Amino acid sequence: MSTIKEKLFTSIIESTNAGNDKVTVVGVGQVGLACAFSILSKKISSDVVLIDVLKDKLKGEMLDLQHGSSFLENAKVNASTDFAASAGSKICIVTAGARQREGETRLDLVQRNTEIFKGIIPKLVQHSPNTILLIVSNPVDILTYVAWKLSGLPKNRVIGSGTHLDSARFRFLIAQKFNIAPTSVHSWIIGEHGDTSVPVWSGVNIAGVRLRDIDPTVGTECDQEKWNEIHKQVISSAYEVIKLKGYTSWAIGLACANLTSAILRNSNQIHAVSTLVCGFHGIEHEVFLSLPCSLCIDGIACVVEQSLTCEERQMLHTSANTMTNSIKNLKI
Amino acid sequence: MSTIKEKLFTSIIESTNAGNDKVTVVGVGQVGLACAFSILSKKISSDVVLIDVLKDKLKGEMLDLQHGSSFLENAKVNASTDFAASAGSKICIVTAGARQREGETRLDLVQRNTEIFKGIIPKLVQHSPNTILLIVSNPVDILTYVAWKLSGLPKNRVIGSGTHLDSARFRFLIAQKFNIAPTSVHSWIIGEHGDTSVPVWSGVNIAGVRLRDIDPTVGTECDQEKWNEIHKQVISSAYEVIKLKGYTSWAIGLACANLTSAILRNSNQIHAVSTLVCGFHGIEHEVFLSLPCSLCIDGIACVVEQSLTCEERQMLHTSANTMTNSIKNLKI
Amino acid sequence: MSTIKEKLFTSIIESTNAGNDKVTVVGVGQVGLACAFSILSKKISSDVVLIDVLKDKLKGEMLDLQHGSSFLENAKVNASTDFAASAGSKICIVTAGARQREGETRLDLVQRNTEIFKGIIPKLVQHSPNTILLIVSNPVDILTYVAWKLSGLPKNRVIGSGTHLDSARFRFLIAQKFNIAPTSVHSWIIGEHGDTSVPVWSGVNIAGVRLRDIDPTVGTECDQEKWNEIHKQVISSAYEVIKLKGYTSWAIGLACANLTSAILRNSNQIHAVSTLVCGFHGIEHEVFLSLPCSLCIDGIACVVEQSLTCEERQMLHTSANTMTNSIKNLKI
Amino acid sequence: MSTIKEKLFTSIIESTNAGNDKVTVVGVGQVGLACAFSILSKKISSDVVLIDVLKDKLKGEMLDLQHGSSFLENAKVNASTDFAASAGSKICIVTAGARQREGETRLDLVQRNTEIFKGIIPKLVQHSPNTILLIVSNPVDILTYVAWKLSGLPKNRVIGSGTHLDSARFRFLIAQKFNIAPTSVHSWIIGEHGDTSVPVWSGVNIAGVRLRDIDPTVGTECDQEKWNEIHKQVISSAYEVIKLKGYTSWAIGLACANLTSAILRNSNQIHAVSTLVCGFHGIEHEVFLSLPCSLCIDGIACVVEQSLTCEERQMLHTSANTMTNSIKNLKI
Repeated sequence: MSTIKEKLFTSIIESTNAGNDKVTVVGVGQVGLACAFSILSKKISSDVVLIDVLKDKLKGEMLDLQHGSSFLENAKVNASTDFAASAGSKICIVTAGARQREGETRLDLVQRNTEIFKGIIPKLVQHSPNTILLIVSNPVDILTYVAWKLSGLPKNRVIGSGTHLDSARFRFLIAQKFNIAPTSVHSWIIGEHGDTSVPVWSGVNIAGVRLRDIDPTVGTECDQEKWNEIHKQVISSAYEVIKLKGYTSWAIGLACANLTSAILRNSNQIHAVSTLVCGFHGIEHEVFLSLPCSLCIDGIACVVEQSLTCEERQMLHTSANTMTNSIKNLKI
Repeated sequence: MSTIKEKLFTSIIESTNAGNDKVTVVGVGQVGLACAFSILSKKISSDVVLIDVLKDKLKGEMLDLQHGSSFLENAKVNASTDFAASAGSKICIVTAGARQREGETRLDLVQRNTEIFKGIIPKLVQHSPNTILLIVSNPVDILTYVAWKLSGLPKNRVIGSGTHLDSARFRFLIAQKFNIAPTSVHSWIIGEHGDTSVPVWSGVNIAGVRLRDIDPTVGTECDQEKWNEIHKQVISSAYEVIKLKGYTSWAIGLACANLTSAILRNSNQIHAVSTLVCGFHGIEHEVFLSLPCSLCIDGIACVVEQSLTCEERQMLHTSANTMTNSIKNLKI
Repeated sequence: MSTIKEKLFTSIIESTNAGNDKVTVVGVGQVGLACAFSILSKKISSDVVLIDVLKDKLKGEMLDLQHGSSFLENAKVNASTDFAASAGSKICIVTAGARQREGETRLDLVQRNTEIFKGIIPKLVQHSPNTILLIVSNPVDILTYVAWKLSGLPKNRVIGSGTHLDSARFRFLIAQKFNIAPTSVHSWIIGEHGDTSVPVWSGVNIAGVRLRDIDPTVGTECDQEKWNEIHKQVISSAYEVIKLKGYTSWAIGLACANLTSAILRNSNQIHAVSTLVCGFHGIEHEVFLSLPCSLCIDGIACVVEQSLTCEERQMLHTSANTMTNSIKNLKI
Repeated sequence: MSTIKEKLFTSIIESTNAGNDKVTVVGVGQVGLACAFSILSKKISSDVVLIDVLKDKLKGEMLDLQHGSSFLENAKVNASTDFAASAGSKICIVTAGARQREGETRLDLVQRNTEIFKGIIPKLVQHSPNTILLIVSNPVDILTYVAWKLSGLPKNRVIGSGTHLDSARFRFLIAQKFNIAPTSVHSWIIGEHGDTSVPVWSGVNIAGVRLRDIDPTVGTECDQEKWNEIHKQVISSAYEVIKLKGYTSWAIGLACANLTSAILRNSNQIHAVSTLVCGFHGIEHEVFLSLPCSLCIDGIACVVEQSLTCEERQMLHTSANTMTNSIKNLKI
């Protein structure tokens, strides 16, 4: 006897589960979930897969998202501890990683996360050999380098979220001071995502007007309006939010969704992301740092060579040297 | 000497902070945040205010959302422990409330949440006398009644999220069984949001074809395909998700964002929400339960009188009686 | 000496122009443009190609759309008289076709449009062998059949926009009468897109309540409230709009954008589209008519077998016979 | 006996038709329709009213848009020849106006359009005393001045679409040359919307890098790469599109939708729009020209004072003088 389904539907073809815009998110901590949810609610992908080792948490998040699928334009959400579920992903966002233990050195943490990446990156590439890796786990610049090495992918296909978020925070804080919209502020933070990040004050402009043309001291130690405080606030932002709510999630999730959209739409939008900087601004080491890059369906299409001041260039080299030291003893 | 701001901008008018679509979310737990984030990322409102008593958490969430504002089309996000910040809200979403303590009776919990609402509802109405209250805190049907009583607002302006989420889960689960999109399943759960919810199997249809026309036993105890399991799954969904991930958030957040959009767009969309059901389906008590309602800029415009089977009507009355008992000893 | 471009940008890879969601629109009349613009403004595709023989008009429309690309999330818009520009399209929307000349028989028109299709369909398939054809040109049911024959594609990949628009008009008119949102009306028109279309009154429902359960005469000749007028209005809609503004564009453009989204998002949404109906509802002829179908990345995944009344079934057979007669003398 | 509607629905309140985001578009030519359709398809307003004197055309466009309302999130579309239908509009977009007749002087045309505006502007303000006027009709700078005079509204509430579109074209053309996204190009055209528009080459930048820092001749007559051609292309764009397709529509529609969104969302985004420039850049005449302005719920919040080169300033004064001559003999 035929079922209701058989009576109601006549199948024309076997429907496939693989869409054109599949995105995998590895790690269902607060950051991974904010990425996945931002991508879904903004309709950037219609097909999101969550991967983690925490079976229960994974299933709980999958169900909670699936229950909302009628509000997500029927997007598909799957979850698995098995990387096979990620097969055919256009982009894999990696948010997994350990946090610093008490007494643990930074290098030890990096090595520990490198070991974790050894269990992730090759499997992602195995199931999606043509994917783009978007690395979010911290320290993001080092781990993007690690992912590049482990993946065997060309450099354009391995991207770190880098200072895209720092730049967004920078714009918001300047915008707030001027009472204008953040998207009307054009300002960039490059270099390391973190304490040695480089605010490119020389280029900060509103409607093409450079703040430095109004006051050449903007962003320097001599600046009486203390604009430099804003960069300090950017650096302390992550610490402050973590202190206040325990973690950061929404802004990094939205930033990664924004990068994902730029890539899937083949937009050639320019964003500050972590890339192999060897050869840029006189850097000779094989390290990853953020520079403004245009993003296309194949990842990074080109790098913008900003005209930096001596001081900015110096700061960038300091970032590069820190990176070099961090990775030289790394066992990949 | 003039500042950079003064040199760069000439003010034409004092810009106001109050937009046309201000939404306040009370309570920054997982549910409140999922509501706020869904509303922001889906561009339903450009002006969201968070209210809570947890100062640090509140500031952390506000900062984290603000840092993402360039990805939220420059939406404004504010937060305060002072209800004055909610002034002029078109909709106030209330997610605050206590959880059941071990050994605490359900009635005690309700009374405790009623006390909490006494500190919230009058203040919301004071600052936004023309607002719409969307109650999400559980038990939602009772607390919507409480909010109605405390607010002095007309019944169309006090709405409980009710079985809108249950209906979304119901549709998803049926959709999954048929391998079709959840939005192509037309099925409703009414009554209490929770264990005594009423699945209106008699009306479940796909493209206008009622499942009961294919098989009259669908959803009953006699049904060999056991469709009734789906309703059981809907009821157990919340419990299961809470067991797996600790709380529910995404689906309820999206469901509330959907109701918010329906109201702000004055759409007259029909959704199952908790409303004063006295006079419907023979219910004579002054209680709140979910029925399909059309939503407009003034809240509930009208109630759809579904043609229920005897059994469905009976179940609804059971829900109503449970409610009546729950509220009769309540001190509001 | 290097150019500004060379100084500013360092290329990492040659960026490709082919996105994941390329859509070609053939014909830049009012309908084709409304399709293209709806798809772009709703961000359904980031890569739209226009094809036509009118070189100037084509370039003018392309430029006008390109000038708006910063408001279309940087979507790419190209145009060409050469079908090679359509290569790699996921969906090709065909809106080209001749209009009826004075004194021309309908069959003559169909034959003339068939000749036009001979210059379009094979070229589309040549450049995008795995594409989905969405036929919009009228008479749409016959021309979808013609496109299927000419293309050599499996039936799931050749879809006519059919009665998707008729259904949308049907829902709007019912919604207007009830003062509710069109998306809250569940009603279907199937069969021929045009004068013999079949309104499935037996399934029309609001929140699962069938109008026929309230009044069994709804939609019949005996109906005192004359709901049947609404179907007549649907049929006359196209004529009326053409009389008033000269053509129809917005609604058909939005309807096609909606189908495009359902397909590209692999959503399995159910819409009434023109498909090969041989074998459904007792139809034995190889003709195309609209039935509710679920749409996936490969086109039509399945057909919903509605339970029709005798009268509705009879009307559908009349549609089928009309089609059979129309195509039997056609030279394809 | 009660109707189906009465049996199905119980009214709770009389639903109102006035939403929070009502927008009126005056003039249903190609530009007015592109504005209305962009606003609807991008969900910027849920309530659009069309006003014109052409009764049939008006009804045809209204019906065509209404038929698509289920694809426009149930937006309301109304149309009338009576300005009373515009009551309560947050923004009124004026696209009505006569075209130049053969042999007619420009001044005669302006006077003729002024007469038309006398029949429009006072009626709009009468029905929406707190509205914002967005003038699109050409010559836009003069007609915005006329609208300001006729309306009695404060200057922040009367805005011309001005060079917002010119700037978008400028960005697109630079983007095309660099193969990057238009939104990643930061460049401004100010002054008159038309032949004497002023490209602010001194501020053109990509990721904060000024093209003039790479090559100081960019945009001048000495420039070997002939970037100045791009400005010439911008000026000729309108003429070219009109020659090719008969009119411009999509880009101006999207540009106006973008301004509408910036205003309704109270975003403080900065766009180049036509405003009263008396007092800026040494201009002493009471004329309207485009400068970068931040837009809020009350219209123009502030004007950005760009640091112009002598040449740019000179060009702007030429624009201002042209305007002054155009309006001095105008009878308002």
